[in-house]
Amino acid sequence: MADSRQFVPLAEACPPFFVGVDVGGTNIKIGVVDDLGRPLNATHIATQVEKGPQAAVARAGEAVRKVVSEAGLEWGAIARVGLGTPGTMDVPRGILLEPGNLPGWWNFPIRDALSQATGAGVTFGNDAGAAAYGEFWVGSGRVLHSMVMFTLGTGVGGGIIIGDLSVEGENSAGSELGHMIIDCNDNARLCSCGKTGHLEAYASASSVVKRTHEVLRGGRPSSLADRTAACEELTALMIDEEAERGDALALEIVLDTARYLGIGITSAMHAIDPQGVVIGGAMTFGQHTTATGRRFLERVKEEVGRRAFPFLAQRTAIDYASLGGDAGFIGAAGLARRAYLLQKT
Amino acid sequence: MADSRQFVPLAEACPPFFVGVDVGGTNIKIGVVDDLGRPLNATHIATQVEKGPQAAVARAGEAVRKVVSEAGLEWGAIARVGLGTPGTMDVPRGILLEPGNLPGWWNFPIRDALSQATGAGVTFGNDAGAAAYGEFWVGSGRVLHSMVMFTLGTGVGGGIIIGDLSVEGENSAGSELGHMIIDCNDNARLCSCGKTGHLEAYASASSVVKRTHEVLRGGRPSSLADRTAACEELTALMIDEEAERGDALALEIVLDTARYLGIGITSAMHAIDPQGVVIGGAMTFGQHTTATGRRFLERVKEEVGRRAFPFLAQRTAIDYASLGGDAGFIGAAGLARRAYLLQKT
Repeated sequence: MADSRQFVPLAEACPPFFVGVDVGGTNIKIGVVDDLGRPLNATHIATQVEKGPQAAVARAGEAVRKVVSEAGLEWGAIARVGLGTPGTMDVPRGILLEPGNLPGWWNFPIRDALSQATGAGVTFGNDAGAAAYGEFWVGSGRVLHSMVMFTLGTGVGGGIIIGDLSVEGENSAGSELGHMIIDCNDNARLCSCGKTGHLEAYASASSVVKRTHEVLRGGRPSSLADRTAACEELTALMIDEEAERGDALALEIVLDTARYLGIGITSAMHAIDPQGVVIGGAMTFGQHTTATGRRFLERVKEEVGRRAFPFLAQRTAIDYASLGGDAGFIGAAGLARRAYLLQKT
Repeated sequence: MADSRQFVPLAEACPPFFVGVDVGGTNIKIGVVDDLGRPLNATHIATQVEKGPQAAVARAGEAVRKVVSEAGLEWGAIARVGLGTPGTMDVPRGILLEPGNLPGWWNFPIRDALSQATGAGVTFGNDAGAAAYGEFWVGSGRVLHSMVMFTLGTGVGGGIIIGDLSVEGENSAGSELGHMIIDCNDNARLCSCGKTGHLEAYASASSVVKRTHEVLRGGRPSSLADRTAACEELTALMIDEEAERGDALALEIVLDTARYLGIGITSAMHAIDPQGVVIGGAMTFGQHTTATGRRFLERVKEEVGRRAFPFLAQRTAIDYASLGGDAGFIGAAGLARRAYLLQKT
């Protein structure tokens, strides 16, 4: 199923072309982009994790071919394919190691499998790193020389780009910014990874829901209490909605989340000193389009102002991502383009 | 005054040669090293901060010439000079901005001043970054492809090297790992930079002394209490000595410091995923040569094991630096060599 977003017409597109494949626990997003990072066509298929990686890669290979032909392109016009997946992984060897979001896909050589399925060279990387590269290439980081990205979803992902280098790490675990420690105390929150005090345990959608449940159990009145009493499942989206409607508790949770994120951003700023910080992912509270999103960003900046060297707080641009859910496949295509241009395989 | 360390004899040294200048609040260390990073000669002069940067640079220029001629080298054999100073600074412009340790030296164009004083091209960088580069080049990081270094002194400095790239940051404030936040709570400790919860407020020598005073005020018996009662000034060195002599409180302070450092190291590991972590600076409790130093390192690793992804904790080498106080000038010379080889000015 082709998505209904704005695509660049083939007549205006600039070769060479690249395909990006963004594998998630639910969907695989696939798109073809031109040399300027503009999508010509895109689609998504269900991951169907339970059917295993071979089947998924085979279906992804078909979808890649289809998305290219539906864009009006010959397959030969595709210079290279980019692939982003959740970790853990071994990037140089092209292997998924033990990705928590993809049970049953462990130790699978996904890069070479996709290369065989498509007949193209494949550049492989971490999904959050790919999304960061997409924002760096053509998104809200396109004016930056170096950039740190935080991706707020079920977990907290990260990406670090310095110059044109995406920081992969020696064990393909670089830029795991959600696992920086923000609370060293014994009563710190437990992270999804099993360790304590990590940023993700405070600023992820899962943490937001958990923190809200804790406050609601205290009996504080809130429209969230009414909705959960009516058997709705509490989600970050619901908290966002009620914050936007003026619920005090919901807004407090949102702004606390911003405070924690600001702390993580400060640590990343002092470690990397990037030109800018980009905040993306599904849980960005409507970004600039809602009052909640604007207050969230404002609160993030306030906390950075409280915590960071003043000249860094002044000079470092902090803003939302601009590519939305397309960042992953655009960035994967961008990393493929980078490898193609630099003549590495 | 030449130092009494082991120098490589001129007959065995490999050209080209480089001079490193490491400016501190008390001393300026100067050394000439060969292409393999081995010192041929070294010296130090008093910084005399109060007499201003022009006078210090003039004296440093003379000392540079002298250290080279005493090594038996013609000045023409020196390919380039490296200069490390405390920040804040503007590396691309070669200017000290507002270095806290060098009052009265603000907004001084130190790189070009040293270049004029010596007649050589000068490569300029942060002192902690230079020390990290020294360890990376020829110290305990010499086998590593990427490295994070923590420098424990009055403050906590940092260095990040990825591939051969020293992470300077967009505002010359990169690798300030002492200012990553480890405690997000309202009662977090105040850092020397004026902000709260930073690693430096927990793991620096100043913090160690402060934390010890707090415990001693509680009336706990300790040989430290006896020595301070006898009007000795409490220092990190005294705490080290008493820990080594078996004082329980002193050892507890040392191991708490290790715990905090392990937390900071974990954040850096998750952000950068370096091949190894190096711990240097004046406050390393005797490193491998004392029981306290060995227990300190062991405790750091334990904390990383508790906090980091298990496969990272297993794979990431953590060890002490090996160049001692020479790391700064050797690393500054190394950065000069890097610039010379890469033909950048």
